[in-house]
Amino acid sequence: MCDLLRINTSRGVMISDGQSRFSINGKPIYHFAGTSTYSEYTVVHVGCVAKINPSAPLDKVCILGCSIASGLGAALNVAKPARGSSVAVFGLGAVGLAAAEGARISGASRIIGVDVNPRKFDQAKNFGVSEFVNPKDHDKPVQEVIAKMTGGGVDRSIECTGDVDAMISAFECVHDGWGVAVLVGMPHKDAVFKTHPMKLLHQRTLKGTFFGNYKPRSDLPAIVEKYMNKELELEKFITHEVPFTEINKAYEFMLNGDSLRCIIHMDG
Amino acid sequence: MCDLLRINTSRGVMISDGQSRFSINGKPIYHFAGTSTYSEYTVVHVGCVAKINPSAPLDKVCILGCSIASGLGAALNVAKPARGSSVAVFGLGAVGLAAAEGARISGASRIIGVDVNPRKFDQAKNFGVSEFVNPKDHDKPVQEVIAKMTGGGVDRSIECTGDVDAMISAFECVHDGWGVAVLVGMPHKDAVFKTHPMKLLHQRTLKGTFFGNYKPRSDLPAIVEKYMNKELELEKFITHEVPFTEINKAYEFMLNGDSLRCIIHMDG
Repeated sequence: MCDLLRINTSRGVMISDGQSRFSINGKPIYHFAGTSTYSEYTVVHVGCVAKINPSAPLDKVCILGCSIASGLGAALNVAKPARGSSVAVFGLGAVGLAAAEGARISGASRIIGVDVNPRKFDQAKNFGVSEFVNPKDHDKPVQEVIAKMTGGGVDRSIECTGDVDAMISAFECVHDGWGVAVLVGMPHKDAVFKTHPMKLLHQRTLKGTFFGNYKPRSDLPAIVEKYMNKELELEKFITHEVPFTEINKAYEFMLNGDSLRCIIHMDG
Repeated sequence: MCDLLRINTSRGVMISDGQSRFSINGKPIYHFAGTSTYSEYTVVHVGCVAKINPSAPLDKVCILGCSIASGLGAALNVAKPARGSSVAVFGLGAVGLAAAEGARISGASRIIGVDVNPRKFDQAKNFGVSEFVNPKDHDKPVQEVIAKMTGGGVDRSIECTGDVDAMISAFECVHDGWGVAVLVGMPHKDAVFKTHPMKLLHQRTLKGTFFGNYKPRSDLPAIVEKYMNKELELEKFITHEVPFTEINKAYEFMLNGDSLRCIIHMDG
């Protein structure tokens, strides 16, 4: 949450001189989100560079970007479910599946996946999700469905959609007394989170996280080591690979409910 | 947060047989809040009784009821400010002053008291409050005033008024990245807590507490011991004492902004 380097998509230039480092036909190309990684070579602020194990395969660890680190860290660093506890994960895209994977690594025994797209459920089983709820299958709020399934609510919930109604459900589905809800999904700029304050007074906790509370420079190298030591599997997030010449296919995959990550091989 | 004994002001009867234990002229007098302590003798569920040190003076430790335990525990058990940190306390009645006292015991170096009644400020100094903000003195939201005073926000805030706008301010005045806001005050039944979810995503935490997260039966005896060992001063909460014959004066004190607790001596 460093003030200097905080992700600032509207900055678009280097901090040192307020200029861009790229151009095409004399027109500047601006930097995106402080890293501008969507190219073979780039120029970034030194504070945005993390040195990782040089033997790590880049076509695997490249997926450790904002989404997967956020989901994984939301579980491992913020929700921290106890062994044997119950966790609800809202949204079963890459962020939610990374959160489920983190809950599984933590030893949660019930991981309830919530998504309006039932096609996501099969894939989610590989990430430790043990039960599924499709809010469209119920005529009462999903938090009530989950409360009924779990005798009062889950121990932890992790919201990975960015939809403010899902955030409210994620908060309201945790158990009184000790439940912790963690918000990961990016909300709409006009979204308003609303709840009755008594739900807080009943000793619940509501937290948000950014990049899974990881400090990128100091913590990313250790996540890469986790992968190298086989404590963390990244391959299951990679559903597609294409050569650079077929890059437009990668965009098609993004619209497909079964795809998670597509690796684009620059030398392909 | 025990389901069986949770405070239930509408129950009004004993759990065992659904009957009241008191009457006047043949009409039942109902039990209040599970304890019915407003009498010399009472009958309560065994789960509502805590055995304390028999040498503790009852005319001091009797103030360890819901309000003072809630404020104290909100600081000591929930907000847990680090030594040298900053804490904002919203509402400087007995609950807020107990929270300030807990923050002081924890070693907070800046305790900012927020109240619309400046007559509360002098008294609050005895409870460790070091700075004051009267929201009425400013034409911008109090969270912005506090952010400016503290270079971005306080480390912890504790809301002790029950006013939902104060709750929102208490949440929004904590620092991004690590700030924790704790809600203690009882909200109106129709109150709606509203905030922009990005304020959570910036790694703040919002928690509520009930009875300061103390378990009454197991923890109250230890708070009494803290008083007996002079780690906790209760005398400064007692601003008035009256004999039973002057009980109506006690009600007048309640309407007086300078009073905190009035002891009614039954033998007086």
